[in-house]
Amino acid sequence: MSRPHPELGTPRALTEHGLRIVGLGGLGEIGRNMTVFEHAGRLLIVDCGVLFPEPDQPGIDLILPDFGYLEGRLDRVEAVVLTHAHEDHIGGVPYLLRKRADIPLVGSKLTLGLIRSKLTEHKVTPVTVQVNEGTRQPFGPFDLEFFAVNHSIPDALAVAIRTSAGLVLHTGDFKMDQLPLDGRLTDLGGFARLGGEGVDLLMSDSTNAEVPGIVTAERDIAPVLGNVFATARQRIIVACFSSHVHRVQQVLDTAVLHGRKVAFVGRSMVRTMGVARDLGYLRVPGGLVVDLKEAEQRPPNEVVLVSTGSQGEPMSALSRMAGRDHTIRVTEGDTVILASSLIPGNETAVYRVINGLTRLGARVVHKGNALVHVSGHASAGELLYVLNLVRPSNFMPVHGEWRHLRAHARLAALTGVAEDNIVIAEDGVVVDLVDGQASIVGSVPCGYVYVDGLSVGEVTEASLKDRRILGEEGFVSVVIVVDSTTGKMVASPEIHARGSGIDDAALSEVRPRIEEALGFAAADGISDAHQLGQLIRRVVGRWVNENYRRRPMIIPVLIEV
Amino acid sequence: MSRPHPELGTPRALTEHGLRIVGLGGLGEIGRNMTVFEHAGRLLIVDCGVLFPEPDQPGIDLILPDFGYLEGRLDRVEAVVLTHAHEDHIGGVPYLLRKRADIPLVGSKLTLGLIRSKLTEHKVTPVTVQVNEGTRQPFGPFDLEFFAVNHSIPDALAVAIRTSAGLVLHTGDFKMDQLPLDGRLTDLGGFARLGGEGVDLLMSDSTNAEVPGIVTAERDIAPVLGNVFATARQRIIVACFSSHVHRVQQVLDTAVLHGRKVAFVGRSMVRTMGVARDLGYLRVPGGLVVDLKEAEQRPPNEVVLVSTGSQGEPMSALSRMAGRDHTIRVTEGDTVILASSLIPGNETAVYRVINGLTRLGARVVHKGNALVHVSGHASAGELLYVLNLVRPSNFMPVHGEWRHLRAHARLAALTGVAEDNIVIAEDGVVVDLVDGQASIVGSVPCGYVYVDGLSVGEVTEASLKDRRILGEEGFVSVVIVVDSTTGKMVASPEIHARGSGIDDAALSEVRPRIEEALGFAAADGISDAHQLGQLIRRVVGRWVNENYRRRPMIIPVLIEV
Repeated sequence: MSRPHPELGTPRALTEHGLRIVGLGGLGEIGRNMTVFEHAGRLLIVDCGVLFPEPDQPGIDLILPDFGYLEGRLDRVEAVVLTHAHEDHIGGVPYLLRKRADIPLVGSKLTLGLIRSKLTEHKVTPVTVQVNEGTRQPFGPFDLEFFAVNHSIPDALAVAIRTSAGLVLHTGDFKMDQLPLDGRLTDLGGFARLGGEGVDLLMSDSTNAEVPGIVTAERDIAPVLGNVFATARQRIIVACFSSHVHRVQQVLDTAVLHGRKVAFVGRSMVRTMGVARDLGYLRVPGGLVVDLKEAEQRPPNEVVLVSTGSQGEPMSALSRMAGRDHTIRVTEGDTVILASSLIPGNETAVYRVINGLTRLGARVVHKGNALVHVSGHASAGELLYVLNLVRPSNFMPVHGEWRHLRAHARLAALTGVAEDNIVIAEDGVVVDLVDGQASIVGSVPCGYVYVDGLSVGEVTEASLKDRRILGEEGFVSVVIVVDSTTGKMVASPEIHARGSGIDDAALSEVRPRIEEALGFAAADGISDAHQLGQLIRRVVGRWVNENYRRRPMIIPVLIEV
Repeated sequence: MSRPHPELGTPRALTEHGLRIVGLGGLGEIGRNMTVFEHAGRLLIVDCGVLFPEPDQPGIDLILPDFGYLEGRLDRVEAVVLTHAHEDHIGGVPYLLRKRADIPLVGSKLTLGLIRSKLTEHKVTPVTVQVNEGTRQPFGPFDLEFFAVNHSIPDALAVAIRTSAGLVLHTGDFKMDQLPLDGRLTDLGGFARLGGEGVDLLMSDSTNAEVPGIVTAERDIAPVLGNVFATARQRIIVACFSSHVHRVQQVLDTAVLHGRKVAFVGRSMVRTMGVARDLGYLRVPGGLVVDLKEAEQRPPNEVVLVSTGSQGEPMSALSRMAGRDHTIRVTEGDTVILASSLIPGNETAVYRVINGLTRLGARVVHKGNALVHVSGHASAGELLYVLNLVRPSNFMPVHGEWRHLRAHARLAALTGVAEDNIVIAEDGVVVDLVDGQASIVGSVPCGYVYVDGLSVGEVTEASLKDRRILGEEGFVSVVIVVDSTTGKMVASPEIHARGSGIDDAALSEVRPRIEEALGFAAADGISDAHQLGQLIRRVVGRWVNENYRRRPMIIPVLIEV
């Protein structure tokens, strides 16, 4: 996992008028988006996000991009442009700033408001540069221009990067809602102007490149919410992403129409809505929002709770309500709305929450049975507009798994981008834009950096392999105490098992085999701890396999006294 | 997890003319379908399936219903009716027959053919009774009538159960394809006739009760396959369930049209297609099917491989191809079709396969981007037909999670079944049909019985809890060797960690703390092994938490020499 394409090798030094582009995350995966641009000896970073772990990465809290590529060159970083404030775009910032605290963070007002609030928890005060759409500002040799894009969080930006190597447009995450709640459209006019100027490379969001057609407008959710509210008899609980300010706005507006008070539940929901309200992105009529305590004292049919937990996170309020492990008691007549996406991989957890709530008698409304969610990413039909308006000489799909990147590459080819000018790069692949041609020139290490508790990067692939074996099969440990002078065992082997499903009585059956094997070893003059350990592994492993057809981790411990 | 509703208590003895119904699986979950009917002191079982484990049941191979409810009464079982040969309906049979080998298995020709083939692997020859749709046959006090139903495996049956307590119709799994490949329609005429006679209780498949409308016909897949075949340049690989005979039939028919040979890949695919062909359910033109070796020697554009692995099973041929760990090398120009459902919970694994194949250059066609799959279960719009034709006095939704059961109950209420006569029971809940009224009368233990390797029921919830902790956090073991006479330590504590992400050098820092704590304990005269173990757990646990914010399993081992 260190170097994605060993055959590519380390790239040669960049030519003077070239632009180098290295995705340290987000290419071949949805998450930990981070792209490093290099030109004239200086670096510009776009986004610095986290990836959330999959089931075969047990115990991991977060996955960071490998900052190793920046090692020794952090002082050359002009800025980190944050296109918007989703975790997969900003979650890695606190860890990057540990390496160099004064890297300027560049972003829109809301984006900076949210990253500042996040950094406060990490006790860091960042250097920030607020920018607006429609403005242009140089950062070292990178001349940046910012464009409004519409997304599932307000105030998102696309960024055009001008250098002597050419003009690159990075869309960030976007969709093309033509009737957005805040009237802030994705700036297709601006993209068209760039297209006229000549875009050497387009890097565009591929998340929904496989999905045909267009994305339904956010505001089409309002009437559906209205219907649900109108027929709800008791308490209403709405779960959604804490960053989805417009979704929450629609819930607030609907609550006003139906005479209900609103309480926010969940730390990140309270925090984000506080920032969004303070900065003017969330309109909250006076007296509408109450605290949870007050909400719980009102009649259930006058209350809406807006909560986190829409992805079935086990410790979230919603999951605990579903498992009757929360002060809020969901009962017959309550209505729960999951106004959220279902991120692939979370199905088991989300359906568990839906089933738990249903079992308690709640009516559960979710994207599977009502239009209570629309995607935040443009679909294929809309991506084509961008390709046709920008008419890039080179195209590089970003923000997607392989299936998304390939699908987006296909769209680019259909709109007339030459096949040779379409670059599909995954994390760590180095792309140079030189003389108007983008091409792959090498690769750099770009492994997963695991955050687990307080440690960053200490949990390795080897630890995870151990965890997977321990988690699937448990372990059997065998402790042998030998006399350091005679080399003879001074006590019978101690055998313990956990998670293996083999009980202690059964385990004792293997003791004579171990003793016998150690006896033979002693007779053969074998006293090397490593060799004896291997022997014990073999004997116990064989016995477990014969009797149980399982492969727990076998851990021999030799102690000399 | 033993008794689902402790407040319900053990049910009283069944009245003489009553029928007792206990779902030991399949109610509140999709899988391990098994219903026990009791009447006049005799028992009838419908289906005996397995449930596949979820991520929080690591290392488990299969989950069985708890046969404990039948303990001491197995001799009273008249028969096990197998509605069809899917694993979630027949997978538990080998384990049930270990309890009593001569329970008659009742089913259609294909169902019995497949269960016999399965039992051969378990070295069991069952007692079987083949039945056909449209026939009626008594088994003790249970007078059974069988009806054709259409499903995603041929030859599925619904069963009507007549006793002096009334008439029960159990649909088994079904859909309502009005143009099925084999012309074998779900027998709505028969259901209507039963409705005329008066159905006291309908038990009907709830899988798709949340899905509005109707299911597309299986044959509508053929033109899509035809298109994909027509544009495929090299090898074609089709992955689907090995039991989906009609899906495979369509692949074979399409292969014939496009002049390609077919090879089956994967043990269960080869076995099932063998049985289906022998029994006349799969039409295979002479010379069409070749073995894999021969297929691999032909030009890629003359070959179709039909493979298992459609759910991303890590050890399947398809997963290994995606990871370049298979003799079949997928390359640019190859086409892979996942002609299959995506069972919730398998998304991560399936998308990993899709991404892996895409990365290798294959075009991957799946239900997300083409009509290459249709469901095997009737949708809400079709379930209403059954409810309206049968007009049952009582209704009990089966085969579903809570969300499905409630949705189906709602449909029943809409068609006019009285709310008091709709019974939502989960596993272990006892329902009695007495004097024409179905009602919940108690509950019985119905826990998960885990199959792990060779053992059945030995891996407990406690083992799984250990596995979850070990899998998420790893462990730290501390071995203390003490002199049995003096009680003093005879060597420094041995500390080992696996999967914790804490390296050995760091670990040694906790050694002085352990020694200090044991010193204090000795001074206080504490020598009890359990108390010392707790002490070590506390000291090491606190140290790990302070330094790493993690909670590995701490395992103290005290050895006296």
